[in-house]
Amino acid sequence: MGTSFTFDLLAQEGRARAGVFHTPHGEIRTPVFAPVGTQATVKSLTPAHLQELNANLILANTYHLYLRPGDELVAELGGLHEFMQWHGPILTDSGGFQVFSLGGINQIDADGVTFKSHVDGSMHRLTPERSIAIQENLGADIIMAFDECPEPYDRAYNELALTRTHAWAERCLTAKMRSDQALFGIVQGGVFPDLRQQSAEFIASLGFPGHAIGGLSVGETKDEMHRILEVVDAILPEDKPRYLMGVGTPEDLVNGVLRGVDIFDCVLPTRLARHKAAFGARGRINIARAEYARDPRPLVEGCTCYTCRTFSRAYLRHLVSVKEMLGSTLLSIHNLHTLLELARQIRQAILENRFARFAEAFFQSRD
Amino acid sequence: MGTSFTFDLLAQEGRARAGVFHTPHGEIRTPVFAPVGTQATVKSLTPAHLQELNANLILANTYHLYLRPGDELVAELGGLHEFMQWHGPILTDSGGFQVFSLGGINQIDADGVTFKSHVDGSMHRLTPERSIAIQENLGADIIMAFDECPEPYDRAYNELALTRTHAWAERCLTAKMRSDQALFGIVQGGVFPDLRQQSAEFIASLGFPGHAIGGLSVGETKDEMHRILEVVDAILPEDKPRYLMGVGTPEDLVNGVLRGVDIFDCVLPTRLARHKAAFGARGRINIARAEYARDPRPLVEGCTCYTCRTFSRAYLRHLVSVKEMLGSTLLSIHNLHTLLELARQIRQAILENRFARFAEAFFQSRD
Repeated sequence: MGTSFTFDLLAQEGRARAGVFHTPHGEIRTPVFAPVGTQATVKSLTPAHLQELNANLILANTYHLYLRPGDELVAELGGLHEFMQWHGPILTDSGGFQVFSLGGINQIDADGVTFKSHVDGSMHRLTPERSIAIQENLGADIIMAFDECPEPYDRAYNELALTRTHAWAERCLTAKMRSDQALFGIVQGGVFPDLRQQSAEFIASLGFPGHAIGGLSVGETKDEMHRILEVVDAILPEDKPRYLMGVGTPEDLVNGVLRGVDIFDCVLPTRLARHKAAFGARGRINIARAEYARDPRPLVEGCTCYTCRTFSRAYLRHLVSVKEMLGSTLLSIHNLHTLLELARQIRQAILENRFARFAEAFFQSRD
Repeated sequence: MGTSFTFDLLAQEGRARAGVFHTPHGEIRTPVFAPVGTQATVKSLTPAHLQELNANLILANTYHLYLRPGDELVAELGGLHEFMQWHGPILTDSGGFQVFSLGGINQIDADGVTFKSHVDGSMHRLTPERSIAIQENLGADIIMAFDECPEPYDRAYNELALTRTHAWAERCLTAKMRSDQALFGIVQGGVFPDLRQQSAEFIASLGFPGHAIGGLSVGETKDEMHRILEVVDAILPEDKPRYLMGVGTPEDLVNGVLRGVDIFDCVLPTRLARHKAAFGARGRINIARAEYARDPRPLVEGCTCYTCRTFSRAYLRHLVSVKEMLGSTLLSIHNLHTLLELARQIRQAILENRFARFAEAFFQSRD
């Protein structure tokens, strides 16, 4: 108990930062990309695969784990680290985002949300207090405030939702019991710079040990995303980590770090893998295409992941063509490696004060 | 070229034998259980998993690989070892069994079989010469004679099929071009001891470097299987390995070795895994059952596989309940480990002249 969550800023270059966030399960070396283990498993990979990938922080979803197997069951079995056998840092979201995107919303009021399970249609209620209690049962190192993530272009609704999100952030802080978990506040406000500014100022005033930027990558343009990041970054305190929720392409990582982001997560690498797609050297590779049937080359020349060190495009194409599970596993390994390695390269570049050149070369190689 | 396939018998105890069969891709230490990689992948596992399991011999299916991706493509990419990145010994079957069980048979005649692909309904023809040519393209270390595997109780039909199987065995020997592959002959004859005797005598006379017993585990009783094994074992030469095709429960392994068998293969371990079942200490465990929801114990106490060393039954039950791929992977690891480890223990017991006691203790523990 009494764990303090400190963030050491090691280097800054422009808005970009390299740091270390200390948690009970080890250091998070930022900038960092967090693979998503929605149901307490990063889809198709063992924890041994994740270790081999040098994954650092793993995300799990409160909504899914609350429904199945249930947070109390996870607590009884020793918490999420023990349950899924990931002994590094874990972050859980608040459940809010999935309630709005997956659950059938029955009612939102000032107190919380009543929703229908996407699994069996049963009715459930989440409030800030329930979200924190569930996340305390799950036992991640970083937990998130319960927030509302509305459609980004509806001004009136975003104003209303922001009032709730802010009130809920305060209630989450009050509800929190465990001192070995860091609770992050979430900035909302849609695509509206003034709402984002207002939200960043309010959330920053509450003294969270870290801050998240929510409600992005949900339909807005990249320019809008970048604008919002710039607005928020100017306000959030520099001595706390900043987490851009649910974002992840390689380009998003570089663009986010350029605008002060430290932590990213996204299902994209494993979801692409299940859809037969891989991050290529420039764009994406749809490995199911006939042109790869006899291609002896690795997915990406020079890539150091297990998949690229070991298998040909022809073999990967065969696996996905005949619907073998190993195809998803091998593509997931490559896609996660790509983002994890990119984050490590970004970090090294910042530490060596050459990130501006790194970013420039990165975008040129993608043109 | 000019590779000789020698079988060194290291120890015998009763009918049970421990030996080493030398192949261009390494030694096969018998008795051995071969995991099945039907489509050039042992379902849900990487080659790294198979190495960690100390797998020795891997089987792949000619019928499936001929249809997809095609044997010529595999040859172009360097053969099966290079294609699937398994650098130990590989065995391919002849395609015969799948033609009869999966393909829609259009015509069987003295020359070969015309069948319909289970993938797209296209028509294909396999003959002894085509089967050997395909297996030479695939490039396994052990290849199999093209045979017919009929319904085991129809006497008249088994007599007819046996005539074909024997003629085809001779044609396979003539057709074979590569000297770096060992061609095994296959004994057929249904449940009829006199046909099996006749078949074993004929096949043994042809001088194959190894022999297989086909057409078992296809509907006959265990007593019938054991009787046939005893008949055949008395005839097949002792200085060549004996392969019981498509058989393996743990009990079958012990019973087979007691009757002179050296090599086993079966899809059971990985198929059970996909059906949420695991080999338990006594019988099978259906891990989906509610009783395991909060069970912190490993699948099998004392089991040294990655799954049992790492995860609880509760976690495995969660994975299969929410249909996560990792469930199949972890159960496959455990099930394959169980048979691979049992084969290693059997071998060690024979080498130490204590297999009779080992077998007795094994069956007592299962009562």
